Amino acid sequence: MDTASKSGTLYLIPCPIADETAPWDVLPAADRAVIDALDYFIVENTRSARRFLSRAGVARPIDTLEFRELNEHVTDARAVEELVRPLAEGRSAGVISEAGVPGVADPGALVVAACHRRGIRVVPLVGPSSILLALMASGLNGQSFAFNGYLPVKPAERVRAIRFFEHRARTERQSQLFIEAPYRNAKLAEELLRSCAPDTLLTIAVDVTAPGETIRTRTVRAWREGGLPELNKRPAIFILGI
Amino acid sequence: MDTASKSGTLYLIPCPIADETAPWDVLPAADRAVIDALDYFIVENTRSARRFLSRAGVARPIDTLEFRELNEHVTDARAVEELVRPLAEGRSAGVISEAGVPGVADPGALVVAACHRRGIRVVPLVGPSSILLALMASGLNGQSFAFNGYLPVKPAERVRAIRFFEHRARTERQSQLFIEAPYRNAKLAEELLRSCAPDTLLTIAVDVTAPGETIRTRTVRAWREGGLPELNKRPAIFILGI
Repeated sequence: MDTASKSGTLYLIPCPIADETAPWDVLPAADRAVIDALDYFIVENTRSARRFLSRAGVARPIDTLEFRELNEHVTDARAVEELVRPLAEGRSAGVISEAGVPGVADPGALVVAACHRRGIRVVPLVGPSSILLALMASGLNGQSFAFNGYLPVKPAERVRAIRFFEHRARTERQSQLFIEAPYRNAKLAEELLRSCAPDTLLTIAVDVTAPGETIRTRTVRAWREGGLPELNKRPAIFILGI
Repeated sequence: MDTASKSGTLYLIPCPIADETAPWDVLPAADRAVIDALDYFIVENTRSARRFLSRAGVARPIDTLEFRELNEHVTDARAVEELVRPLAEGRSAGVISEAGVPGVADPGALVVAACHRRGIRVVPLVGPSSILLALMASGLNGQSFAFNGYLPVKPAERVRAIRFFEHRARTERQSQLFIEAPYRNAKLAEELLRSCAPDTLLTIAVDVTAPGETIRTRTVRAWREGGLPELNKRPAIFILGI
């Protein structure tokens, strides 16, 4: 049953990807009116959500706002329903991720799904996604692409996964994106250079939207010959393509 | 060889998805300084790019700007190299798509790829992507998703493609996105309801960022029972998931 008429709206509020970036350099000014009207936020991390709202110059005093956390520790269905109940009762809420857009590579999708089950309206706002920005700037096929999250950590499974995604990139002409914990980036990049064919294209996008942003697409052969960029502790997106 | 030091930069400049949307409601104000500094634009359609820049209130008179088209008619390698040559000679350029972000579901990727081959820096700007916004608001798995462009038009191939993507959505837990020419949306939606399992989740996102924006995720069973939204000539994104 559609209860949207009397219920609140769930707004998906992006925030900057990089600490160095001022909110209004990567968010449209129109997002501000939405944020200013809300007093209830479902967030991945309260501390960083408060810091974001404070830097964004939100109209209400931060201490009058209510924050509830949705992260990997709060995933059982009942806890999620609890977060959504105020919306069913007519209150609107904003979802704020740790970085970038909510609902893509974070637990935000759980609260969105709960809203759809109750017929609550969901409105996504424009903001920075390192996945999308890296894809745009890769020059790889953007008519067909897949984001695969993290690769397995165990070496044998990891190599199998890399070969699987490279095969899919080549046979389906589908660009294959994945991410890694920043401290493991360099190892992953080396593994990609070892495991992939010389003429496979590899995009490495580091520090997207941050001052040191570098997005380069080269063949595996050219990366092997020219060397890798500094990757240690820099957030990165990797894309395989042809 | 990296010629980036003396060459220009290729900026990927998003524009509104919907005609009704004012540019600065969906683009960060910081994009303006980038646009104002450019006098060379590689565009999908000159007329709509000029209209966008005019509505955005670009600093220079539009008639002093140079526009060259990159679309489905300009895809041979030599023509693309011609477009990129000014960048190698030190001039910067902006890529503007017909709607939304360049390089994703448009020919912009060709010029980006040519820049990477020449070591020219590519910088993506933040803006609206109906694919990303629909995914955010779907509540479907955002840790693993694929965008597949258009489905085949011929009925038998189309049904096969739907079954293939539904199977992948269910077995890999990978959300499957696709688009359709707006005048064929209603037919595609009906075909999805006929071909998919009752408990498969289907997101229908119409008029993303436009005044009539509606994004709903329901089971195929619930869509069958509750009926489809008006889809005729409204731009839509479809997502299958579990």
